[in-house]
Amino acid sequence: MVIESKNNEKIKQAVQLAASSKERKQTGLFFLEGLRLCHDAALSGIRIINLFYTADAAQHSRFELITQKAESSYEIRQDIASRLAQTQSSQGVFCVCEKPGMKLTEDDIVSGGCFIALENIQDPANLGAVCRTAEALGIKGAVLSGCCDIYNPKSQRAAMGSLLRLPLLITDDLPGLLSRLKKKGTGVFAAVPDAAAQDIRTVEFGFSSITVIGNEANGVTRETANICLPVTIPMKGRAESLNASAAAAVIMWEIIRRT
Amino acid sequence: MVIESKNNEKIKQAVQLAASSKERKQTGLFFLEGLRLCHDAALSGIRIINLFYTADAAQHSRFELITQKAESSYEIRQDIASRLAQTQSSQGVFCVCEKPGMKLTEDDIVSGGCFIALENIQDPANLGAVCRTAEALGIKGAVLSGCCDIYNPKSQRAAMGSLLRLPLLITDDLPGLLSRLKKKGTGVFAAVPDAAAQDIRTVEFGFSSITVIGNEANGVTRETANICLPVTIPMKGRAESLNASAAAAVIMWEIIRRT
Repeated sequence: MVIESKNNEKIKQAVQLAASSKERKQTGLFFLEGLRLCHDAALSGIRIINLFYTADAAQHSRFELITQKAESSYEIRQDIASRLAQTQSSQGVFCVCEKPGMKLTEDDIVSGGCFIALENIQDPANLGAVCRTAEALGIKGAVLSGCCDIYNPKSQRAAMGSLLRLPLLITDDLPGLLSRLKKKGTGVFAAVPDAAAQDIRTVEFGFSSITVIGNEANGVTRETANICLPVTIPMKGRAESLNASAAAAVIMWEIIRRT
Repeated sequence: MVIESKNNEKIKQAVQLAASSKERKQTGLFFLEGLRLCHDAALSGIRIINLFYTADAAQHSRFELITQKAESSYEIRQDIASRLAQTQSSQGVFCVCEKPGMKLTEDDIVSGGCFIALENIQDPANLGAVCRTAEALGIKGAVLSGCCDIYNPKSQRAAMGSLLRLPLLITDDLPGLLSRLKKKGTGVFAAVPDAAAQDIRTVEFGFSSITVIGNEANGVTRETANICLPVTIPMKGRAESLNASAAAAVIMWEIIRRT
């Protein structure tokens, strides 16, 4: 089917889903752009409600799987694609998807492996980048608390599909969750920029662990820190000068490197 | 002295220095914004030719050192500050500075320590972020080849002052430089996303080393790779899915963590 009008209701809904986390919350839907991300969604079993594509995009090898999985597909003109596009070099492929259920449980964490918790991460690109790194290094899943919306298009782009694959659990009571995990034997750690904390190189993460990475400016909250063993990256240069995603990369690598 | 006009020649020059790498190249000058960066420049002995500031900015404790070091200082109105501002939350402090000489030499590298080389890094924010991480972790200096302009305001902001402090050497012949260093006994490595390369955890970096981090999309050039021992971060998740600055952070941490 071809959509000829910019005022088509499905196009208007897609634009709103891209722009508004409130719209995403109310509908349970989200917006994805680009061959790679839409292909990742199709591969990950995410329900694709509507697919919009330009004639050019339909020539791409990755397009076939996306169109197979999409429940409805609409060809659009370039001017409508430009309205949907969030990036400068748009590929002309856009999906409206259903938010999947959360795949990570507390029991999964207790069952073993290295997990992270992200607390109050506010920048969508940061959130995406940290999850991308987590997946690449082999972190088994992430708990999110107070973070920006994982379905923000900027988060999804920076995540390069990892937010569609990495098992996630969203909670509004991170201290409560960490307390329960601790009682069940999971090692509970918090990354802090404090030279008095334990050197990350000497930490025994054990059979099951979760490490909290805090807000870009303010770090981990006091309530959370009180439950955790504080761990830190020793700085040889100027103190406190790693940015949030670089610090997260080093912390996650160090958690994983001895396993 | 007070500048009342947006068309003042000094203001126009500052705007051009912020916008144009050609202007920066022709004049040997560059533009900095913000209390922290201008303060860092003053602390690092960078020559501050012109300082522009709003009345509000002059109240800040960091302002005093900047005004002491500046050769000329001009108070500006808020509307002129808005013209100079590159950031949304501008602090009303701007400097035009002289590019300092390069502080790193080939002999410094041979003399010992861990260095990095950045080849064809194209994103200014990436370049700044990698140099910030390098300084924080204790990398002794960076060789740059084919990278974007270190004096781009986006590079300087992401670097949080590290580009004003970290010893740098710019070359247009990285393979030649690496060959000479290798002959003099420096270990010469290249970070590659290739599972067949040596696991970064098992590399002996030795007394003097330099590790090349390549372009965001294409990695290290063939000419450079031919001279270097390839090293890699073993991936447990999906291959090749660390972004450039996360990969650089992990590589640099691993170089430093055993020293």
